[in-house]
Amino acid sequence: MNYTDTLGSSAQRAKRSLATADTQKKNKALELIAQAIDSRRAEILAANAKDIEAARANNMRASLVDRLMLNDARIDDIVKSIYELIKLEDPIGKIDSGTIRPNGLHITKVRVPIGVIAMIYEARPNVTPDAATLCLKTGNAVILKGGKEAYNSNKCISDIMRDAVKDIFDPDIIQFVDDTSRETTAALMKCRYVDVLIPRGGAGLIRAVVENATVPVIETGSGNCHIYIDSSADIDMAVDLTDNGKTQRPSVCNALETLLVHKDIAEAFLPRVKARLDEHNVEIRGDERTAQILGDCVVPVTDEDYATEFGDYIIAVKVVESLDEVIEHIAKYSTGHSECIVTNDLNNAARFRAEVDSACVYVNASTRFTDGGMFGFGAEIGISTQKLHARGPMGLYELTSNKYLIDGNGQIR
Amino acid sequence: MNYTDTLGSSAQRAKRSLATADTQKKNKALELIAQAIDSRRAEILAANAKDIEAARANNMRASLVDRLMLNDARIDDIVKSIYELIKLEDPIGKIDSGTIRPNGLHITKVRVPIGVIAMIYEARPNVTPDAATLCLKTGNAVILKGGKEAYNSNKCISDIMRDAVKDIFDPDIIQFVDDTSRETTAALMKCRYVDVLIPRGGAGLIRAVVENATVPVIETGSGNCHIYIDSSADIDMAVDLTDNGKTQRPSVCNALETLLVHKDIAEAFLPRVKARLDEHNVEIRGDERTAQILGDCVVPVTDEDYATEFGDYIIAVKVVESLDEVIEHIAKYSTGHSECIVTNDLNNAARFRAEVDSACVYVNASTRFTDGGMFGFGAEIGISTQKLHARGPMGLYELTSNKYLIDGNGQIR
Repeated sequence: MNYTDTLGSSAQRAKRSLATADTQKKNKALELIAQAIDSRRAEILAANAKDIEAARANNMRASLVDRLMLNDARIDDIVKSIYELIKLEDPIGKIDSGTIRPNGLHITKVRVPIGVIAMIYEARPNVTPDAATLCLKTGNAVILKGGKEAYNSNKCISDIMRDAVKDIFDPDIIQFVDDTSRETTAALMKCRYVDVLIPRGGAGLIRAVVENATVPVIETGSGNCHIYIDSSADIDMAVDLTDNGKTQRPSVCNALETLLVHKDIAEAFLPRVKARLDEHNVEIRGDERTAQILGDCVVPVTDEDYATEFGDYIIAVKVVESLDEVIEHIAKYSTGHSECIVTNDLNNAARFRAEVDSACVYVNASTRFTDGGMFGFGAEIGISTQKLHARGPMGLYELTSNKYLIDGNGQIR
Repeated sequence: MNYTDTLGSSAQRAKRSLATADTQKKNKALELIAQAIDSRRAEILAANAKDIEAARANNMRASLVDRLMLNDARIDDIVKSIYELIKLEDPIGKIDSGTIRPNGLHITKVRVPIGVIAMIYEARPNVTPDAATLCLKTGNAVILKGGKEAYNSNKCISDIMRDAVKDIFDPDIIQFVDDTSRETTAALMKCRYVDVLIPRGGAGLIRAVVENATVPVIETGSGNCHIYIDSSADIDMAVDLTDNGKTQRPSVCNALETLLVHKDIAEAFLPRVKARLDEHNVEIRGDERTAQILGDCVVPVTDEDYATEFGDYIIAVKVVESLDEVIEHIAKYSTGHSECIVTNDLNNAARFRAEVDSACVYVNASTRFTDGGMFGFGAEIGISTQKLHARGPMGLYELTSNKYLIDGNGQIR
């Protein structure tokens, strides 16, 4: 048996006691994890220091070193979020629906854990406790495969969590893939003991998983998000929403990448939004009409720009003839994450809602709200851009499956 | 652009008018399809005759020729099932949930079509109208890839359906893959214009799809189903349920394959069930204790037998020590489809329900009820044995996804 099969079969064994545990017992385990991370933070910070040192020795970019870094405040946040998770409702055992059939069969559809979830993620070490505790709350065994840059941090946190739960559960409900090779990652994507694989990271990771996995996958995250300023838009609101979507946190998946502006409002709106975006030195890549209005500062936009998730202070701009053109443009270039129309026209709002085929469709609000916390889910495992199982922000419910329970007294066909 | 990309992009274009169509319009198209299939049955029967002739020339087994064959009665059934589908509730547009957030954002989660669904299936030509009409009702464009044995029948039915809807919808909402080569099938599994792929067929097809697809897949069908006769079971009921599960239709996925019997009831039960199974000449492959009780008629069972979906008049039998052994055995060998306990013991029933990790878990009823029709769904696209999106029988609801609609008045983060 290879390494990932060993992990997988241990997880399958361990999941059983967890799947049938009641909420009190799972919450107790979460509390023990929170306490252990809190009280053993010196170990975590020491392990993290090694990762930071290696990152700096490898000349990692400062913004990435920052994502990798843990400190007392960040550990406080991790601990706090576990206590918040304890308070959330447990979806397991909830009855979705039920019926008594004409032949007397009682059929009940109940929420159950998925079973064994493998998470493959990149540099941020806080994903390790996040993913493990969300899976624990929903009765799932988890296999954690973090990025090699955060190896020491991830291993230390995983060990602490396993140690914390060991008196209540088989510690293999949380397992750490102690091997950052590509071969092991590839084997995990095909491991028959894994029920679902959730990759969290950049477009490259997601693509590798989609192309190679034989295990069912929930695709997360890549967001080429659009805002359309209709001719009836309130210009102040349009400026605020464009600015917020682009500049409040450009690196995240719900940030804006492309601005589409109706020709009848372009002359009034574009100079106003440019003035605001200039405060963050946003580069404007626009079509000819945009350049005609804004002048030489506009970099000529390419087809590739329209297809790109910049994740940076760059925005693609196009002046459009009609809502039809907007819907065509979004259908062609969007990754199906989040799109917004700014309008005061009821018909246009209705058409945009109905015809734009993305997970989250906004009328007059910032795409930055596509987030489990902002949606009121209390916790988030990622944002799905596929259409199966989960679409949009995923909370605890999305980490569950269903089972049909059928009770009879001898019914046959 | 290759052939499947051409089909896929046409489907993406065509899906738009369908996705936003109201139920009346979709039902009208279904009615036109039913009328066309009914009135043009001579063409369908002529096309089917060619397939049957070729099948016989290739010495196809009689049972498979029967699956391939259409006749007036079968066409009547197809037409009738379309009229029944018209009566079913349309899931599209239903609101799953909704909330007003503290900042005033209105968030609504609504059911929407998946988009473009590709179906890959084997010999039965009735899957062609079935899949197309279920997809139409749920607002999905469909790409149909049937088996080469049914090529003429499938093409004829597809052409008739496209022709029937052409005055209401873009006929590319229903497309037929007019090429039965393996290369084209492989290309369809990776086609970026396909939102979801649903294979319907034997274990070989399902495996090929799971291994090769980059498109999200709903795995259907393979069923290695178990029945466990607890020591407290009513013997008459246990005999009825075992017989019904094994012999009522052995070729289907919800038929029984393995019988597990508690040692304390084995001597009383096994001769009784053997007598009943003998009426259908069921071959018994049993362990040593089974042979001790039933004698020389028992073929020694192998590990491979326990892992096999016979789909035939063969049953694997094991005498077990305890419910623990049953749960272990099912965890090891089951495909997660349907399992049954026959018992009068409340605790054992509860443990079996909680600890058996299959889509459908029965207490005192035949596994043969795992079926969309029997569950009251009115229509069925297949039975899912995976845990994402859909698990168990899939009806119209399972052919939908969700979208979040977020309405604001300028909210930013």
